[in-house]
Amino acid sequence: MLSLMPMPASVRYGAGWFPIDQSLHVSIQGRGDSRVPHAVDRFFTNLAFRTGIPLHNTIDGSKSNFVVTCAAAGEKVQALTEDESYRLEITSSAVRLDAPNPLGILHGLQTFLQLVSIGPNGFAVPAVTVEDRPRFPWRGLLIDVSRHFMPLNVIQRNLDAMEAVKLNVLHWHLSDDQGFRVESRKYPKFQKLSSDGMFYTQQQIQDIIQYARDRGIRVVPEFDMPGHNTSWFVAYPELASGPGPYQIERKWGIFDPAMDPTRDHTYHFLDDFVEEMAKLFPDQYFHTGGDEVNGKEWDRNSAIQEFKQKHGIKDNRELQTYFNQKLQKIVNKHHKIMIGWDEILHPDLPKDAVVQSWRGQASLAEAARQGYRGLLSHGYYLDLMQPASLHYSVDPLGEAANLTVEEKQRILGGEACMWAEFITPANIDERIWPRAAAIAERLWSPENIKDPNSMYARLQSVSDYLDFLGLTHNASYHLMLERLSGSSDIRSLQVLADVVEPVKEYARGDARQYDSLTPLNRLVDTVHPESDAAREFAEMVQRVLNNPSATADIDAIRRWLNLWHDNDQQLEPLLQADSLLQEILPLSQTLQTVAATGLQALEYLGHGGHAPGNWREQQLALLKQAEKPQAELLNMIVPAIEKLVSATVPE
Amino acid sequence: MLSLMPMPASVRYGAGWFPIDQSLHVSIQGRGDSRVPHAVDRFFTNLAFRTGIPLHNTIDGSKSNFVVTCAAAGEKVQALTEDESYRLEITSSAVRLDAPNPLGILHGLQTFLQLVSIGPNGFAVPAVTVEDRPRFPWRGLLIDVSRHFMPLNVIQRNLDAMEAVKLNVLHWHLSDDQGFRVESRKYPKFQKLSSDGMFYTQQQIQDIIQYARDRGIRVVPEFDMPGHNTSWFVAYPELASGPGPYQIERKWGIFDPAMDPTRDHTYHFLDDFVEEMAKLFPDQYFHTGGDEVNGKEWDRNSAIQEFKQKHGIKDNRELQTYFNQKLQKIVNKHHKIMIGWDEILHPDLPKDAVVQSWRGQASLAEAARQGYRGLLSHGYYLDLMQPASLHYSVDPLGEAANLTVEEKQRILGGEACMWAEFITPANIDERIWPRAAAIAERLWSPENIKDPNSMYARLQSVSDYLDFLGLTHNASYHLMLERLSGSSDIRSLQVLADVVEPVKEYARGDARQYDSLTPLNRLVDTVHPESDAAREFAEMVQRVLNNPSATADIDAIRRWLNLWHDNDQQLEPLLQADSLLQEILPLSQTLQTVAATGLQALEYLGHGGHAPGNWREQQLALLKQAEKPQAELLNMIVPAIEKLVSATVPE
Repeated sequence: MLSLMPMPASVRYGAGWFPIDQSLHVSIQGRGDSRVPHAVDRFFTNLAFRTGIPLHNTIDGSKSNFVVTCAAAGEKVQALTEDESYRLEITSSAVRLDAPNPLGILHGLQTFLQLVSIGPNGFAVPAVTVEDRPRFPWRGLLIDVSRHFMPLNVIQRNLDAMEAVKLNVLHWHLSDDQGFRVESRKYPKFQKLSSDGMFYTQQQIQDIIQYARDRGIRVVPEFDMPGHNTSWFVAYPELASGPGPYQIERKWGIFDPAMDPTRDHTYHFLDDFVEEMAKLFPDQYFHTGGDEVNGKEWDRNSAIQEFKQKHGIKDNRELQTYFNQKLQKIVNKHHKIMIGWDEILHPDLPKDAVVQSWRGQASLAEAARQGYRGLLSHGYYLDLMQPASLHYSVDPLGEAANLTVEEKQRILGGEACMWAEFITPANIDERIWPRAAAIAERLWSPENIKDPNSMYARLQSVSDYLDFLGLTHNASYHLMLERLSGSSDIRSLQVLADVVEPVKEYARGDARQYDSLTPLNRLVDTVHPESDAAREFAEMVQRVLNNPSATADIDAIRRWLNLWHDNDQQLEPLLQADSLLQEILPLSQTLQTVAATGLQALEYLGHGGHAPGNWREQQLALLKQAEKPQAELLNMIVPAIEKLVSATVPE
Repeated sequence: MLSLMPMPASVRYGAGWFPIDQSLHVSIQGRGDSRVPHAVDRFFTNLAFRTGIPLHNTIDGSKSNFVVTCAAAGEKVQALTEDESYRLEITSSAVRLDAPNPLGILHGLQTFLQLVSIGPNGFAVPAVTVEDRPRFPWRGLLIDVSRHFMPLNVIQRNLDAMEAVKLNVLHWHLSDDQGFRVESRKYPKFQKLSSDGMFYTQQQIQDIIQYARDRGIRVVPEFDMPGHNTSWFVAYPELASGPGPYQIERKWGIFDPAMDPTRDHTYHFLDDFVEEMAKLFPDQYFHTGGDEVNGKEWDRNSAIQEFKQKHGIKDNRELQTYFNQKLQKIVNKHHKIMIGWDEILHPDLPKDAVVQSWRGQASLAEAARQGYRGLLSHGYYLDLMQPASLHYSVDPLGEAANLTVEEKQRILGGEACMWAEFITPANIDERIWPRAAAIAERLWSPENIKDPNSMYARLQSVSDYLDFLGLTHNASYHLMLERLSGSSDIRSLQVLADVVEPVKEYARGDARQYDSLTPLNRLVDTVHPESDAAREFAEMVQRVLNNPSATADIDAIRRWLNLWHDNDQQLEPLLQADSLLQEILPLSQTLQTVAATGLQALEYLGHGGHAPGNWREQQLALLKQAEKPQAELLNMIVPAIEKLVSATVPE
């Protein structure tokens, strides 16, 4: 199996390997644009770094053994409708990459780079012919930089990773209750009063847009309205429906403040504002949010109540539609197509709007039936700490069986969402990667590519690949463990950290009071959302239960259990002495306890499976307890140990 | 012991800890310049990243608990003579940092940052009063970007690390036979023909200089002349003494081409060139190299021979002095002080030149005696793969005992040198760090701070600290092991890699033919210059030999030896299948063999120390063999095992 993610639409295997050495020379033909030579430059930098071979594209062009042919230049502003297909033909002596558009060239180069591996004859790429095109034209990653600001280098390296897995839209969630993150020259109080000093200058935004364009990625800004605007009102309280004054929101959740949709001033302001932002962000789409307006500030404002009565607006939902219709005219006036969350969907919403569904596939299908184009984000929320396999199983067309072909085509794709309540520059990469690559595959590859085992094997490869691109999902995990333990000797802490996961969905917010000033430096902020060790352990246990004579697996299980069992003794002094780690003392003890149970179960299973008295019941009760979160962390080896215990038979 | 490197001139311990939390507010007082607020911004970014606590310097200044007072602004161009001292007073409730100059503030903030650790009450800094100043005013790091080009981000992160350890000069070796790395607007053929397309634009240079200035670091450019100029002659052959044509040199070593010191054109050209570069690089010092001119091209040029006769120049050394005198006038004309290597030293050399000694402390002392100021680099060559303790033991005043006070003051300091024959962007950090921190301490701290055990303990801390700054000396080690093994499962490869070191001094060049196109992706390019594991193992062995009842050490030694003994079995299949690793099959087998010897010795020592027959002799002979390089690597545990074997007694 090729270590490719996303898996191409079609792969035909050839014979032999194309070697990576100093004879490599790429020649560029056809009529592409500057993105093609830029991409070839990055291609060489990547290959040189990954192989340690000095490689430059400087030798005589007549010796070219890698011909890149791009039929035409792309749109000046990357468009949703551009052809992203490519054909990559690799033989043992030559490579041809053909595409109708620079986007296909970018994708084909990434496919090639993922195929490089070291073997008995050095670095090489297998001879294959790939014909590839995306299943959906809109494959996004939302990054929320309002709730926790992310510096530019975080955005840049995530764009590098997006290119690697062929995601093509950065949905930049730039404002929310907790902060406004863009320099406005028309409304400079935004950066002065609404950002805590943490915002992007217009020059920085332009640089990011150029950086993204070079990587085949559109940048769609989101300015969420008419709710999620508290930070706006700190600078411009006249936009709000309440009396103010406002302060930047520090808490997480849904808040009352909302724009006043009844005053002309609001629309004059937005006209000016959207004009400025529409120029700054060249993409054809402009996201205006529209989610989670609770209407309480509207209800408390008598002028708004009067307005509703006067205009026959029967409820707040209709009032929001009224706002959306006016906002959409503004957005259209500035040559953009409006995109918003589920809530904007209303019979009066003009049909050129795009609906992004956080509610689910059924909601998305319903929008398509009504004539709207849509995107799926439900099922792709990376902040919920779900396994990659769960995201991978969610298909944008999952509830579209009864749609016509035309209706189905309105479903443009989807977006992975990185909401930022619990992320920092140190852990954002590991919250996004490698899981987002599984979503990227769902959005790019044919529908029938859906075996989770294959996905996990390739996810490991893509994760390694992203290490080389400078993503910090692994490097920063080690740094954060060092930070927690105050030294670089993190061995025993990592033994524990490797088998636990943060609690799922919204359980963290339920567990304690968090806000934007809460330090995010505990073990729950450090560990990967998904424990590879626990998943592999579970697979081993399953193999042994299927085949009790799998002695290699039995030995491996025993080694793991011994490691876990003995770990608490090593770890405990560190945990005692460290304010950030004291809370995991019980978690560490539980690991010892459940490992002991596992070892005992293994012992019984090795001798006929009989366990004395009510051992089995007692242990299952103990394991039930061990499943519960401790310090907002879940011990992920417990389910597999439950299986071992369940396989014993009471004497 | 405080985890500080370099150790300050004076530390007085107080009581308690100053906590790092959201009450932290730095207020800036006095009359510094923009470097102070910039440094405070970076200080908060660093603290926030290292602690995971959201920290910004935004709260009300009246609540300030950290007062930074800078008495005056610094020079517009950082000067050698500026006062770098500072006083840092930390109590459990407040911090005061005072300095006469922004440079002291930068140093004091770094001292504070190194003191942060996690404890039972969270992140905190111990109450101490530090009064500190450097022993030498010139504390440099030379980075050669000619032999292997280094991208900007490599330079930037190394400047970050230099700031952390109070190094204050980046000596940028920008041209050599193998490439010319600066954009010249007057002589654009340099970047076109002499650089293989790998050079810095003037804008990039300016950005680096600004970046360095913000970190208290001067940037001294080196343009080596009149030898080491082959790449120059590709673009401008009229400068050369030979007939040409020239090609960019691909090999390493000392080559014949040299500038023609007899033609007026040479000096007209250099006048123009130095003028341009003197403007680009604002530092007061301008390095013109001057090393390793073999004179062969001069000897083959009859016009030069005639010139020598005519002017009574008796040998090539005098001819080079003639060149240097003219060059120095040019350098002075453009308001710079010339600095060059040992070879420029000659009775006729004007006294304002600075001599950088690669030959040794005696040569440096001799220069000082003759009235020249000087720098030591002999003993600080990082490319020679020596242990930190060796560099640490080399003092710039090591041969200065007989100098007068005035003569001693002419010894300005020293520079660690990172020559680039065998470095790439992937391994440069681990070639420089953490060893350069030991040199930084030698150049900053009082002469009597010289205990290598203390140094190694603190070197580990500073290495961890540099991880957080983004230095890749550890992260890239793992990446390169992944690159070698083609997967992220590097455990058994790392067991071997952790106990071997590259061959020392110039042995690599002797072992095989290298040039600038040779891939640098083997294990020898990957491993650290110094094996911490081997050093710690040797210390354990020494403790056991001193005290045979140190059972904890004996157990630890046995665990290590067992790990090493069993490793080859795990590793061998990978080595067989991987073109880059096949060469270390014998190295891996040797590890097993010597570990077996060690285990046997331990066994005998545990039972009275008697070994049968000629076992001891046989094993010592075997270990003698095992000391030899394999694949240009040395097995560093062998000496400790020799000690164990030597401690047995033939029966």
